[in-house]
Amino acid sequence: MTLAIEPLIDYRAIVAELVQEFATTAVERDAQGGTPQYERDRLRQSGLLKLIIPKQYGGWGESWVTTLQLVREFAKVDSSIAHIFSYHHLGVVAPHIFGTLEQRERYYTQTARNNWFWCNGLNPLDRRVTLTPEPDSFQAGEPQRFRLNGTKSFCSGSVDSDLIPVTAVQEGAAGLTIAIVPTQREGVVVHGDWDNIGQRQTDSGSITFNNVLVERDELLIPDADGSVFKTIRACFTQVTFANIYLGIAIGALSAAKEYTQTQTRAWITSGVEKATQDPYILHHYGELWTNLQAATVLTDRATEQAQRIWERGDALTLEERGECAMSIAVAKSFVTKVGLETTSKIFELMGTRSTAAKYGFDRYWRNLRVFTLHDPVDYKIRSIGNWVLNGELPKPDLYS
Amino acid sequence: MTLAIEPLIDYRAIVAELVQEFATTAVERDAQGGTPQYERDRLRQSGLLKLIIPKQYGGWGESWVTTLQLVREFAKVDSSIAHIFSYHHLGVVAPHIFGTLEQRERYYTQTARNNWFWCNGLNPLDRRVTLTPEPDSFQAGEPQRFRLNGTKSFCSGSVDSDLIPVTAVQEGAAGLTIAIVPTQREGVVVHGDWDNIGQRQTDSGSITFNNVLVERDELLIPDADGSVFKTIRACFTQVTFANIYLGIAIGALSAAKEYTQTQTRAWITSGVEKATQDPYILHHYGELWTNLQAATVLTDRATEQAQRIWERGDALTLEERGECAMSIAVAKSFVTKVGLETTSKIFELMGTRSTAAKYGFDRYWRNLRVFTLHDPVDYKIRSIGNWVLNGELPKPDLYS
Amino acid sequence: MTLAIEPLIDYRAIVAELVQEFATTAVERDAQGGTPQYERDRLRQSGLLKLIIPKQYGGWGESWVTTLQLVREFAKVDSSIAHIFSYHHLGVVAPHIFGTLEQRERYYTQTARNNWFWCNGLNPLDRRVTLTPEPDSFQAGEPQRFRLNGTKSFCSGSVDSDLIPVTAVQEGAAGLTIAIVPTQREGVVVHGDWDNIGQRQTDSGSITFNNVLVERDELLIPDADGSVFKTIRACFTQVTFANIYLGIAIGALSAAKEYTQTQTRAWITSGVEKATQDPYILHHYGELWTNLQAATVLTDRATEQAQRIWERGDALTLEERGECAMSIAVAKSFVTKVGLETTSKIFELMGTRSTAAKYGFDRYWRNLRVFTLHDPVDYKIRSIGNWVLNGELPKPDLYS
Amino acid sequence: MTLAIEPLIDYRAIVAELVQEFATTAVERDAQGGTPQYERDRLRQSGLLKLIIPKQYGGWGESWVTTLQLVREFAKVDSSIAHIFSYHHLGVVAPHIFGTLEQRERYYTQTARNNWFWCNGLNPLDRRVTLTPEPDSFQAGEPQRFRLNGTKSFCSGSVDSDLIPVTAVQEGAAGLTIAIVPTQREGVVVHGDWDNIGQRQTDSGSITFNNVLVERDELLIPDADGSVFKTIRACFTQVTFANIYLGIAIGALSAAKEYTQTQTRAWITSGVEKATQDPYILHHYGELWTNLQAATVLTDRATEQAQRIWERGDALTLEERGECAMSIAVAKSFVTKVGLETTSKIFELMGTRSTAAKYGFDRYWRNLRVFTLHDPVDYKIRSIGNWVLNGELPKPDLYS
Repeated sequence: MTLAIEPLIDYRAIVAELVQEFATTAVERDAQGGTPQYERDRLRQSGLLKLIIPKQYGGWGESWVTTLQLVREFAKVDSSIAHIFSYHHLGVVAPHIFGTLEQRERYYTQTARNNWFWCNGLNPLDRRVTLTPEPDSFQAGEPQRFRLNGTKSFCSGSVDSDLIPVTAVQEGAAGLTIAIVPTQREGVVVHGDWDNIGQRQTDSGSITFNNVLVERDELLIPDADGSVFKTIRACFTQVTFANIYLGIAIGALSAAKEYTQTQTRAWITSGVEKATQDPYILHHYGELWTNLQAATVLTDRATEQAQRIWERGDALTLEERGECAMSIAVAKSFVTKVGLETTSKIFELMGTRSTAAKYGFDRYWRNLRVFTLHDPVDYKIRSIGNWVLNGELPKPDLYS
Repeated sequence: MTLAIEPLIDYRAIVAELVQEFATTAVERDAQGGTPQYERDRLRQSGLLKLIIPKQYGGWGESWVTTLQLVREFAKVDSSIAHIFSYHHLGVVAPHIFGTLEQRERYYTQTARNNWFWCNGLNPLDRRVTLTPEPDSFQAGEPQRFRLNGTKSFCSGSVDSDLIPVTAVQEGAAGLTIAIVPTQREGVVVHGDWDNIGQRQTDSGSITFNNVLVERDELLIPDADGSVFKTIRACFTQVTFANIYLGIAIGALSAAKEYTQTQTRAWITSGVEKATQDPYILHHYGELWTNLQAATVLTDRATEQAQRIWERGDALTLEERGECAMSIAVAKSFVTKVGLETTSKIFELMGTRSTAAKYGFDRYWRNLRVFTLHDPVDYKIRSIGNWVLNGELPKPDLYS
Repeated sequence: MTLAIEPLIDYRAIVAELVQEFATTAVERDAQGGTPQYERDRLRQSGLLKLIIPKQYGGWGESWVTTLQLVREFAKVDSSIAHIFSYHHLGVVAPHIFGTLEQRERYYTQTARNNWFWCNGLNPLDRRVTLTPEPDSFQAGEPQRFRLNGTKSFCSGSVDSDLIPVTAVQEGAAGLTIAIVPTQREGVVVHGDWDNIGQRQTDSGSITFNNVLVERDELLIPDADGSVFKTIRACFTQVTFANIYLGIAIGALSAAKEYTQTQTRAWITSGVEKATQDPYILHHYGELWTNLQAATVLTDRATEQAQRIWERGDALTLEERGECAMSIAVAKSFVTKVGLETTSKIFELMGTRSTAAKYGFDRYWRNLRVFTLHDPVDYKIRSIGNWVLNGELPKPDLYS
Repeated sequence: MTLAIEPLIDYRAIVAELVQEFATTAVERDAQGGTPQYERDRLRQSGLLKLIIPKQYGGWGESWVTTLQLVREFAKVDSSIAHIFSYHHLGVVAPHIFGTLEQRERYYTQTARNNWFWCNGLNPLDRRVTLTPEPDSFQAGEPQRFRLNGTKSFCSGSVDSDLIPVTAVQEGAAGLTIAIVPTQREGVVVHGDWDNIGQRQTDSGSITFNNVLVERDELLIPDADGSVFKTIRACFTQVTFANIYLGIAIGALSAAKEYTQTQTRAWITSGVEKATQDPYILHHYGELWTNLQAATVLTDRATEQAQRIWERGDALTLEERGECAMSIAVAKSFVTKVGLETTSKIFELMGTRSTAAKYGFDRYWRNLRVFTLHDPVDYKIRSIGNWVLNGELPKPDLYS
């Protein structure tokens, strides 16, 4: 046992600095779309890509609670950055969730050592990517090498990424297999074709795999056993989304507040001198903030529950997972509703001139509108209702 | 130091039993209105009137957190009982908040010893009750006895009460003085004239004081010093209301759930066999429950904050008080909105036949509708907005 | 040809007088429930029971537009009266819709002559009433007499009625047959067992038929031919409901307005002298009134369309009927939503003291809450959506 | 009297053709912003600039009802075009409303003859433009020429316009004077600096007037007499806005419908095969369409009322004007609310892939969000409430 004193990493300060930096260009970059290359470089330099990797593998060993608080901070000013930063973490833990102990350790260690930036390629609704055993690779009746072919859509953070976890259909297999593919490997074509009305710098476009070689130990098999822990990925994507949605909404109200305080003029028939005394403006701030407070406590609670099921590991029960999923569903549904209301309403708190393109105040609504469509909120609410009324927990899949 | 083992009081079990008992007659008693005499007797017998009185004065020494959890349990089935039970506690602590240390100790001790049931007479908007010094009672220039005259409205729990804390106007004094008057004292006339559309068994009618004698040491002087602690009464009424509102709403959804599960038929064009599978009914349960979860976490948080400022005592700062008041305002405003929606919407989850008078399902809405009018929610929301936008904490009064 | 000048009937003045009269006792009668016998007598005396009967059969020959305007007037102060008065008309036209020309003429004529008061017994969801041919009544292979047995629920206006149109299941027949049964006929037992939380004086209880004799010409056969006109009953119940819902909501806002103007006090922190100057109260009135204006124009439009399809008679096409049904569905869904909001919100415009039972202001919400459950608004909205998105008109039944 | 047969102008066909044409480039032009030069040219060629000019002055003599129906058609696909097209008409009638009979005739005639395209420069909140008499121009004590100086903001349709009606402050005059300034006149600088998040091709930027010469007969004096007619401009801007807002919302739902029908996939747990059968999607279409139906009937009614007050001319009373203003306020407030809800909600009816930038579906919300901020909806609603509760009609100004 050594007496080495671990250097203290003030990740909050690091994030605070990056947030401030990213905020200054967020409006401009939203207009541009494309890849936030400079910001990705800054994230790489910052060490934050190692945030959630356990210390024994060379990471910072932080919890999901911390990670998602920081994600929320980024989301307040730039939800594209929050998006790719959080999908990195969801990628980093993919081998932990779906793989063997060896894979977990190997990918954690190498990610920490090489400062890899993960992206996302799991989209299970797009089943065009296939995995085929190499005929000449069989050993003891088992293939050792595979070929990946086809195109996957909605691959967030794909441009400039180092590793892609991608779901593939394997002939004869019921479920999806996940392959971890280095972005630089031969045959991988990242299209960089994301051009949507919001989350514009997330590079959530498509990747084509042209006969890409995959080794046996690069495959994660989600259905390998009946482990509940292997079904928890959806909980973490969903709770991540809730945190980003919340960050967007808080960021919107915060930006509006500064504008109202400094720019908005009292309406001519209001009878008050300053817009900050207007009864309706005050009421709107009170109402929106009340809703965001509710969203915050729900999201905090769900995040803490997610951390608890993470820590349960193989001891996790379906019941515990299901209750956590419901808590997350409640938070995500709620913040979806109040967030959309907030990001649209803020303009009434600021007035006509706040619509100047230079302020970019519409990006909050556009970002949230796009991102909250990930999976339909109506079915999320129905699943909550089914639990409340019928006591049925949601069937674990990549959305529930 | 003695080794005496304190008897364990399982107050949760006591409340659970009373809740079950009161539930069976709640619909019938709502129709009757008037005084819940039997239920008041049961509360007296239960010992629960001593719940919040510190142990050193003979009470059970429970916190506000516990007290309001139990209040919420009552509110789920009978919000009139929750109302008078909680106003009892708000009365019990009046000398603690507004009085001298001697008064605090005396009233705590005597209440515990005599099992007194307090009611409410503070309504500061009704300024008709006057306090006049007895001319012949002056000692060292100070009057030792006073006469109380006039009528006070909205005196919850007045019938069958033992003690009335009543606000009175004293000539020459700016603020209101609070007199603690035994209900049985000569000249006190409890009218028992409460007949409103909800909270029907709260006896929130009027009391007339006909030349009622009051001793000097029965007077509490709120403005005696600049103590912040002496301004916290509003925090506790408001957080109490939030808990009762929440209990009503949870009770409504819970009752609806049982009805839907057992009575509601699937609609003819729904395509499902059972109402519990109906997509819209499931969605409503999901949505209402989501809202009530938000209301619950907000109310829990506010209740815990209230407990913390209670414990701060004389060290309490205006800032701490104000932030707690805002947290309570957020919870109360939010639960007002979602509670009213819930108690009206439940009928759509149950269907036409659920409107039979025997079920009394309308009482949730009527009770909540009446009680949420205590002070205007719009001004509560404005005060939140004023804090958010302008950083101004609410000026302490008996509503904020 | 005679030169007789038809006496002018000022039905608006008649209704205005009755409305004023009924208003004075509406709160009291709502509390009592039961049968509005005096009011029924007044309606009988007024001649209004003949309102919609064509002049050639001895009636006043008014349109549905007029009839429903008057129904709406009643609903503003007493929706129970509006309910039984309108179900009378829906009964009066049952032979017109479902019967032969002979039946239409006979029932119109006799109703006008005898001043009959019709009730309702059509509830198609309750299939307990059976119709059985009398074995000894067959002529030319067709039964001439039948026996009615069983109980029918939700028979609005049943107590003190003269005629009951009741749906019955006939062995071997797919659809329902409608029998027109005199209430006084042997074997008819009107239970008078309606005791619900709203629409309390509608006598919408159950009727038992104990081997009640029915003649062949008292039966209406809805499915006798493929006539579209025979499917329009639902349009008229639904548009009637829309008018009553609207009347209730308008009545509620109107009552609130008078109270705010005369009773409500400005809130202590509002900064205004009179409640009528309060920015939030003004805003609420503006918003609720805006919604009710929208409800009014939609309901007016739907009522006029209903009149047009009525006049089309046998020339009516499925398309015309369907478009009218959609217009009615839009009006009814919309007024359901804004009406419930209005009747609950009015209390915030009036303040705490408006909850005194003597005002009975809760009856608007209770009446509307009960009546809007007639058929689920969610499925009404879905049917609108199905028309908008898929161009499919609702399949005619007794609800669509 | 001549026998000349007036050529029939099928303006509906003209507009239908332009609408179809403009629709194909609307998304692209929204992204570009700037001046829709080609579309302006097409409008000029179409003859539609003469739409509302009375026939005796060489115009087409159409009503406001027709004009605003056509404006609404444009708004369904391109609300920027609707905006500049409608502001043209609001400009064309400025001399009619504010001027002398001679001015009315002169401007109508010359506009028809020269096919002038008017823009807007009335913004009364921006009081930076001054009007100063030329010292050497006095005749009989009255100045015959003036100089205009200063900058005016929010001048919709300014680039490529022919005439600018601009409000100016004149020393010693209480109200604003309106000058009609040819855009090509020396000293007029149209900045073309509009770059906002919506209504991006409206050229609503600023114009600077550098010592611009204005003749006496180019000035309109709104306060010349006590004529009510001279106060009606706000009614026509407001009712125009209501029509454009409505067009945007209808256009959004219509576009969504086509997308849902052809592109949207059923959700994996929905249990239906096609998205068009999804219960929640159907419900959303039903609900949004219901709201838009209400908005349509309100807007139609308001537009017809506006036409009526237009026709009243100098006989118009304050009461008539006020009631029309209230009807317009109701329509505009209502469509603001439901329009914003519609344009944000449509994405949930279409799904994630509908956020691709190529569809430009966000432009509906952006356009409506920007344009509905013209004047605060809260104060519009308050003015309705003030009328409902206190019977006070709004004080005529350029917003009410």
